[in-house]
Amino acid sequence: MSATPEVLPPIAITQGDPAGIGGELIARLYAEDPALMAGCFVVGDAGHLRRAAGVVAAGRAPLPVTDIATPAQALTVPPGHIPLLQVGPARPLVAWGQVQAEAGRLAADAVTWAAGAALRGEVAALVTAPLHKEALAAAGVDFPGHTELLQAQAAAHLGRPLSEVPVRMMLASSTLRTVLVSIHVSLRQAIEAVTREQVLQTLRIAHAALSAMLGRAPRIGVAGLNPHAGEGGLFGREEIEFIAPAIADARAEGVDARGPIAPDTVFMRARAGQGGPGEFDVVVAMYHDQGLIPIKYLGLEQGVNVTLGLPLVRTSPDHGTAFDIAGTGRADPASLAQAIRMARTLRYIDGAH
Amino acid sequence: MSATPEVLPPIAITQGDPAGIGGELIARLYAEDPALMAGCFVVGDAGHLRRAAGVVAAGRAPLPVTDIATPAQALTVPPGHIPLLQVGPARPLVAWGQVQAEAGRLAADAVTWAAGAALRGEVAALVTAPLHKEALAAAGVDFPGHTELLQAQAAAHLGRPLSEVPVRMMLASSTLRTVLVSIHVSLRQAIEAVTREQVLQTLRIAHAALSAMLGRAPRIGVAGLNPHAGEGGLFGREEIEFIAPAIADARAEGVDARGPIAPDTVFMRARAGQGGPGEFDVVVAMYHDQGLIPIKYLGLEQGVNVTLGLPLVRTSPDHGTAFDIAGTGRADPASLAQAIRMARTLRYIDGAH
Repeated sequence: MSATPEVLPPIAITQGDPAGIGGELIARLYAEDPALMAGCFVVGDAGHLRRAAGVVAAGRAPLPVTDIATPAQALTVPPGHIPLLQVGPARPLVAWGQVQAEAGRLAADAVTWAAGAALRGEVAALVTAPLHKEALAAAGVDFPGHTELLQAQAAAHLGRPLSEVPVRMMLASSTLRTVLVSIHVSLRQAIEAVTREQVLQTLRIAHAALSAMLGRAPRIGVAGLNPHAGEGGLFGREEIEFIAPAIADARAEGVDARGPIAPDTVFMRARAGQGGPGEFDVVVAMYHDQGLIPIKYLGLEQGVNVTLGLPLVRTSPDHGTAFDIAGTGRADPASLAQAIRMARTLRYIDGAH
Repeated sequence: MSATPEVLPPIAITQGDPAGIGGELIARLYAEDPALMAGCFVVGDAGHLRRAAGVVAAGRAPLPVTDIATPAQALTVPPGHIPLLQVGPARPLVAWGQVQAEAGRLAADAVTWAAGAALRGEVAALVTAPLHKEALAAAGVDFPGHTELLQAQAAAHLGRPLSEVPVRMMLASSTLRTVLVSIHVSLRQAIEAVTREQVLQTLRIAHAALSAMLGRAPRIGVAGLNPHAGEGGLFGREEIEFIAPAIADARAEGVDARGPIAPDTVFMRARAGQGGPGEFDVVVAMYHDQGLIPIKYLGLEQGVNVTLGLPLVRTSPDHGTAFDIAGTGRADPASLAQAIRMARTLRYIDGAH
């Protein structure tokens, strides 16, 4: 690693769906934890961010929202101001808590702009407040969510086909990290996605990303697919045919991967607790709920979502737009705060490579 | 409910595989928590139980093991004695920590005897220390585990075919209960087991058992099978075709079942915490690991396994024979203690019905 540069580019926080809780979470963190927000700026719409700052102020004077024209200007606004990079023209205010095409459009525009800035090296990391998939669809955006949108933009930037920019989702809580082989597909399709190639690719991505984060090779626990990891083939053969060979392949490449381990014990073994680290730095999970059930079990507040495999750093909170409470100021900013902390960590590492 | 009878039949604790940790866990609880063990007796082999008591005594005088001829005599042994009902002849000591046919035979004989006593009403509940499936097989026992053995015996006792004695496994920790639609099958087969009939049967069994335990209708949360409970059919249709109709059927019968709920949030919502109860008394899980991952995530010590659907009360600890540490005295009796407490609760309820 080289020496840490003195000034890193700022972190871009996209505002998310303006009918959701993104804006008020951001405004609350600027008001309550200015140290955390130093070196960050918001990408979105000034009118909507001012409305959100007003919600959080609860009758007192809201923090001023100050327009900036470039990411670098984020570092020049006075303390107590929220730096905002306006995406396109000022937008009419949308209603709170509803699926609206204009809201989906603003959310997508902010992500597209911020991803471009990250790929150009103008921002060091991207933290994305939640958007709403239906609003995105209503706006005619062809991607079901952040991950696919970022993947497509990265592939275009790199001049590669999508298939050569494989991404994986990592979920991290204060006590557990897990990287998923597949995400938003049915459980039947998730079983089909457990192939030697896909598991090996997940191990490689997890190894590379965690090596960068930790500064050493991570200890990777690999979950089985079936109960008791198949109990020697009695309850399914995917462990024998795909998962164990993929682990052997990865180990031959120097990856410290162990398993397949019974799914109902690997997360417990990996969990940090009582002040000590767990047995593994990360668990590779075979499907969405296998990894998300233990991450979310102790509460949503601390979960962070990290997209691995992209040529940019991107984190996000582990919750949605919460339309039911948007505009009330009651939403908990803990997960967004964790996502910003995680982005900061990854940014320093990225800067050192 | 009627008044609690003054003296209930005792609780039978089967010794489990004598090469495993069962005997020493039992002896430790008799030594350290005599109040918990009042009204209990051990079903097994005196020689093996004396050896286990010696392990736990660690050089001091071990608790005496006192033979009894009938369950009722369990209540007459002096304090500080371990009441033991010998199953068949005295057996030569087996080695610690190995799969042995004689060990499997003794374990099976104890369970068979205790189940018969429970079905005859001579014991109020059955707590089973762990046995080893391979030792059972080596002994020529045709059942893969406790559950199947007990189910067959109950069916014979009732004069019904096996298919008419449906059982389900419930796992309970201090903060969560879950009842599983299927257990020891591959994930592929577990998906096939998610039918309207099987889910409905699980809801009925969970409702009946928890109603008896709680003295009121339980609030049942029903997990989906797919990520986000299928997201309206986008990630799988089992929720639409099978799970939701089964919930509607159950609700029409007066069962308070709600769902299908996203698997990665239903356990978090059901979890009791901060001194308050969770949103559900029990979660019906669609497959083994969906339910067992959250149960085990915080540690094995407090988990209890309860077999629902049988005409007898049966609980067991949430761990195996631990051959690697058997005979060392290091095994933790917390889960067995919880299983005994749970059996006692269920016994009182059963006695009151």
